[in-house]
Amino acid sequence: MSKKVAVIMGSDSDFPVVKGCIKTLKSFGIETEVRVLSAHRTPAEAAAFADSARERGYGVLIAAAGKAAHLAGALAAHTTLPVIGIPVKSSTLDGLDALLSTVQMPKGIPVATVAIDGADNAAYLAVQMLAIEDAALAQKLSDYKQEMERQILEKNAKLQEEVNAL
Amino acid sequence: MSKKVAVIMGSDSDFPVVKGCIKTLKSFGIETEVRVLSAHRTPAEAAAFADSARERGYGVLIAAAGKAAHLAGALAAHTTLPVIGIPVKSSTLDGLDALLSTVQMPKGIPVATVAIDGADNAAYLAVQMLAIEDAALAQKLSDYKQEMERQILEKNAKLQEEVNAL
Amino acid sequence: MSKKVAVIMGSDSDFPVVKGCIKTLKSFGIETEVRVLSAHRTPAEAAAFADSARERGYGVLIAAAGKAAHLAGALAAHTTLPVIGIPVKSSTLDGLDALLSTVQMPKGIPVATVAIDGADNAAYLAVQMLAIEDAALAQKLSDYKQEMERQILEKNAKLQEEVNAL
Amino acid sequence: MSKKVAVIMGSDSDFPVVKGCIKTLKSFGIETEVRVLSAHRTPAEAAAFADSARERGYGVLIAAAGKAAHLAGALAAHTTLPVIGIPVKSSTLDGLDALLSTVQMPKGIPVATVAIDGADNAAYLAVQMLAIEDAALAQKLSDYKQEMERQILEKNAKLQEEVNAL
Amino acid sequence: MSKKVAVIMGSDSDFPVVKGCIKTLKSFGIETEVRVLSAHRTPAEAAAFADSARERGYGVLIAAAGKAAHLAGALAAHTTLPVIGIPVKSSTLDGLDALLSTVQMPKGIPVATVAIDGADNAAYLAVQMLAIEDAALAQKLSDYKQEMERQILEKNAKLQEEVNAL
Amino acid sequence: MSKKVAVIMGSDSDFPVVKGCIKTLKSFGIETEVRVLSAHRTPAEAAAFADSARERGYGVLIAAAGKAAHLAGALAAHTTLPVIGIPVKSSTLDGLDALLSTVQMPKGIPVATVAIDGADNAAYLAVQMLAIEDAALAQKLSDYKQEMERQILEKNAKLQEEVNAL
Amino acid sequence: MSKKVAVIMGSDSDFPVVKGCIKTLKSFGIETEVRVLSAHRTPAEAAAFADSARERGYGVLIAAAGKAAHLAGALAAHTTLPVIGIPVKSSTLDGLDALLSTVQMPKGIPVATVAIDGADNAAYLAVQMLAIEDAALAQKLSDYKQEMERQILEKNAKLQEEVNAL
Amino acid sequence: MSKKVAVIMGSDSDFPVVKGCIKTLKSFGIETEVRVLSAHRTPAEAAAFADSARERGYGVLIAAAGKAAHLAGALAAHTTLPVIGIPVKSSTLDGLDALLSTVQMPKGIPVATVAIDGADNAAYLAVQMLAIEDAALAQKLSDYKQEMERQILEKNAKLQEEVNAL
Repeated sequence: MSKKVAVIMGSDSDFPVVKGCIKTLKSFGIETEVRVLSAHRTPAEAAAFADSARERGYGVLIAAAGKAAHLAGALAAHTTLPVIGIPVKSSTLDGLDALLSTVQMPKGIPVATVAIDGADNAAYLAVQMLAIEDAALAQKLSDYKQEMERQILEKNAKLQEEVNAL
Repeated sequence: MSKKVAVIMGSDSDFPVVKGCIKTLKSFGIETEVRVLSAHRTPAEAAAFADSARERGYGVLIAAAGKAAHLAGALAAHTTLPVIGIPVKSSTLDGLDALLSTVQMPKGIPVATVAIDGADNAAYLAVQMLAIEDAALAQKLSDYKQEMERQILEKNAKLQEEVNAL
Repeated sequence: MSKKVAVIMGSDSDFPVVKGCIKTLKSFGIETEVRVLSAHRTPAEAAAFADSARERGYGVLIAAAGKAAHLAGALAAHTTLPVIGIPVKSSTLDGLDALLSTVQMPKGIPVATVAIDGADNAAYLAVQMLAIEDAALAQKLSDYKQEMERQILEKNAKLQEEVNAL
Repeated sequence: MSKKVAVIMGSDSDFPVVKGCIKTLKSFGIETEVRVLSAHRTPAEAAAFADSARERGYGVLIAAAGKAAHLAGALAAHTTLPVIGIPVKSSTLDGLDALLSTVQMPKGIPVATVAIDGADNAAYLAVQMLAIEDAALAQKLSDYKQEMERQILEKNAKLQEEVNAL
Repeated sequence: MSKKVAVIMGSDSDFPVVKGCIKTLKSFGIETEVRVLSAHRTPAEAAAFADSARERGYGVLIAAAGKAAHLAGALAAHTTLPVIGIPVKSSTLDGLDALLSTVQMPKGIPVATVAIDGADNAAYLAVQMLAIEDAALAQKLSDYKQEMERQILEKNAKLQEEVNAL
Repeated sequence: MSKKVAVIMGSDSDFPVVKGCIKTLKSFGIETEVRVLSAHRTPAEAAAFADSARERGYGVLIAAAGKAAHLAGALAAHTTLPVIGIPVKSSTLDGLDALLSTVQMPKGIPVATVAIDGADNAAYLAVQMLAIEDAALAQKLSDYKQEMERQILEKNAKLQEEVNAL
Repeated sequence: MSKKVAVIMGSDSDFPVVKGCIKTLKSFGIETEVRVLSAHRTPAEAAAFADSARERGYGVLIAAAGKAAHLAGALAAHTTLPVIGIPVKSSTLDGLDALLSTVQMPKGIPVATVAIDGADNAAYLAVQMLAIEDAALAQKLSDYKQEMERQILEKNAKLQEEVNAL
Repeated sequence: MSKKVAVIMGSDSDFPVVKGCIKTLKSFGIETEVRVLSAHRTPAEAAAFADSARERGYGVLIAAAGKAAHLAGALAAHTTLPVIGIPVKSSTLDGLDALLSTVQMPKGIPVATVAIDGADNAAYLAVQMLAIEDAALAQKLSDYKQEMERQILEKNAKLQEEVNAL
């Protein structure tokens, strides 16, 4: 059976950003657990979660955090599973602080970083990882990709009317 | 048998940065193919490589590029395999251009971005992805992690003499 | 007969930004085609469009995209026509990501980049390119320039009353 | 006969950056004039040059300047020819000041901006503009593009040995 | 009699930012002329204004502009009077583009730059310049400074109640 | 007796930056312990160090780290002692990544951040903290401050000759 | 008896940001004085306040200011007490100007900088400093830390329902 | 007789940057005093210097400082003379910290900021201020401007040979 994915956010205020990630994972039939765990306010729980994540059946950890966004890195320090980091934009600096705090990890402890507030992409990336050895899941990703293409072409067709009306 | 990893660079001038990535992959026993393929100068070859990568036995693609670093995104557009992006620092802007061009991908097409010039971490991340379902590889990662820890503690011990000499 | 201009946007959500570009082109009597084509979600269609653009009578391609804005560069990889890039501001980083992803192109594949959200200027630049060999079009640009000058001087005159009222 | 291109630099200290631009233009057989003209130190000469550029047979103006790089914009204010701006990196801020001063032009007066220190690309872009209506020149661009592709593939082939030696 | 000050804005849309500057100048009894003149859309008029400003009795020029803010520098190129630049924040990049385009001037042509949207300070700075040789004006500045101090201390006193209410 | 200060660096490569900090602490007679401990490579040891730091007689912890500099924050998560963070400049981004990763801490877990590579100031700040209740130490700080003043005035005197020689 | 803390803001417009700081200090039973004092508009009063702060029973000074935020540094120049700086976000540049103006202090005069608008953390940091030698206060910090942890875990529990409802 | 100009640097290490400023002032026959005075290490001396500067015959103060460059602002707080700020590039952040700390001054206390390391321009700006009411000095500025123009045109002439040799 396919591995589970954990979606962990540093604060429940990140939930609106993270929602799309959870929905996307579920739409691919991935068993998804969601946690609020802070690298700074519950460091022991965060470490414990990551330490035992592989043996509890997780395949990928996703972490969303803002500002000095250490959560993804803190989890990565405690597991050999791939950790995906979502830098969350907060009230200052437009997310640049979270991006740099997430992506600029030192040698040996990578965090697979996606775009600022790129929660959906964190889900797609997790599915891609799980699909490396799972042909059925890979087919679903392929279908999704074709659907995206179809939608763009449909929007392109629709736009022509609006353009003519200009 | 374990999947292969492709390491693709946008220019052969990126080879010094990418070397550590290739060595690390080999040290974990990962079959590694290396290519120079440009999103802008050989777009057809890059697309073709990504299009058929899964069926040719690749599990992960790693792309290194500088400036308006489109290579990782261009590959990701043509595969459902996870693509890892290494933003390469070039002569201006200290790598910020490559980082933003690599990480800020639109919905549906993620790139797993590592630190600027973080080629080694691209390799560790690829190994982590391949190790999701591979216990032996996971064990090697665990061993590496313990070795890193041991080295830090050894350096800590050695440093005490230097400190006393201050 | 004058060459056509294609205005291509990476997402239909860019249409409000791009509208001014289309209107400006039409006001100069340029035959304008508009497309939604994504470098990442419809890479084959985007490549095909650029590959055959010259023979289908296009003289200039204009591409608008946000975030890791690869569209202009992806088109430029497939044509020898000049490609104008409009970096579009999105929800984070105030357009800096799109600007750097558009302008910092590698040697051999330039993108003529205009200001963030500078869609109107993309149109003026395209007209300037088409007017290199077209005296009538050049005259229209000259008229437009004089009209801009006139408007500024008129605004200057009007402002004096407001200033006196301070 | 094909239009001339002017390459204008704000200071003779920009000449090392601009050299590649001049060589590239000459390699395409473009008649090229080079000037040192400053938007701030010789504003009248710069304005006069741009004012009469079209009638003196120029098709494109290229301007290279650093810091508060106003040269391209100052020329664009005085001509309806397309003006290409090369932001030059100077001793501080890594070229970001020159990039923003060049690209963020107001409505009506575009500057076709290339990468920081991207002098070669300014030349390719100028050639692309001149080739819109010139099939022979377009063919040369196409040949150059194929040569770039060939070189990448050659480098790719060569690199395999170095990779095997790692 | 005291010299006049000219307040020049690149677009009438800058008027709300510039208002405070005009009012402040008037409150010090400085004869103030206001113009809309664009470095790019009315370059000849801007140059002519600066060229003859000293002989027409101006002592200081103040220029407000956004984006690739060349106005202050363009005026400075045509006068030996001090030119004060107000970088105006526009819809992208939070005014950083205007700041760098205004302040990073080349050797020989300085622009006295104030804070982004710092229109009031442009006025105070102009008054300071005019007051170098004008004891009465210097006294007014001194009075203003004491008034500012008094206001801060008054606000400090008032705040104590609000603090106690916390 | 006065509390001890711990100086912790994320990598022994940070030692050259940190040296001045250690020397300064010793010059004030502060008992100083130095450790190499990584938030990512030895997270358990780092946590354990901070958890027990207060009871082992430490009064202040100083942490130096580069890139996604989590060390100070990771220690702060495990202690109620004040933690001082030194952002270390590394090979890319000029220390901005380390600064933001250190200073932008979430509510409840502050890190007292000093300048990029500001190791000496971390020591002075630690001494200031220890001197809140220690009049003798406060006197030493006061003496140091007067010595700094004296040195500036001495340099001022010396400079006059060089100035005259210009 | 415990030392007092002074909270000083450069303008009464900073009061909304600073409120949380004052409340937090009071919640720990710290005697707190609040002042509006400007480094630029009341420099003498600011200097006098800092000069005599230690002898008047202060243990820590907290300063909040925006833009070219000199207040914390100006106070630090006049005391050997630790000074905590809160960079305040203003209308441009998203607080980056205030952050750099506060944190990049020269050798010998540190400012303990917290996050942009991080007023609460300034209070926690001040309490941590006062708690170095005060076991009762340290216990309160420890209790607060446990309460934060409890809240996160409670939020985690609550979130599960929302997640299930997705 | 013409007013004096004071050139004040925050550290004697800024002298190499400031030299050009002093030489330029002397070349215009301006009586120039040079001081090392720090806003943080000799705040009282800096304040005293500014407080009495007008009555001691100064017309303009020039201040050069790096990092959290408060010197110009600190002087401006104590005088109604115009203060010119030179942001000095130091070892990190390429001078951006000094630029923002110098230019982003609050209402009422302007600093006339020139480019990063723009010491020569500080001198020209000071001369421009002194020349508002001094026709002879204005003539010298005019002569200098013509000489700059002549030099550019001479360099332009010389460059033609180098271009032909390409």
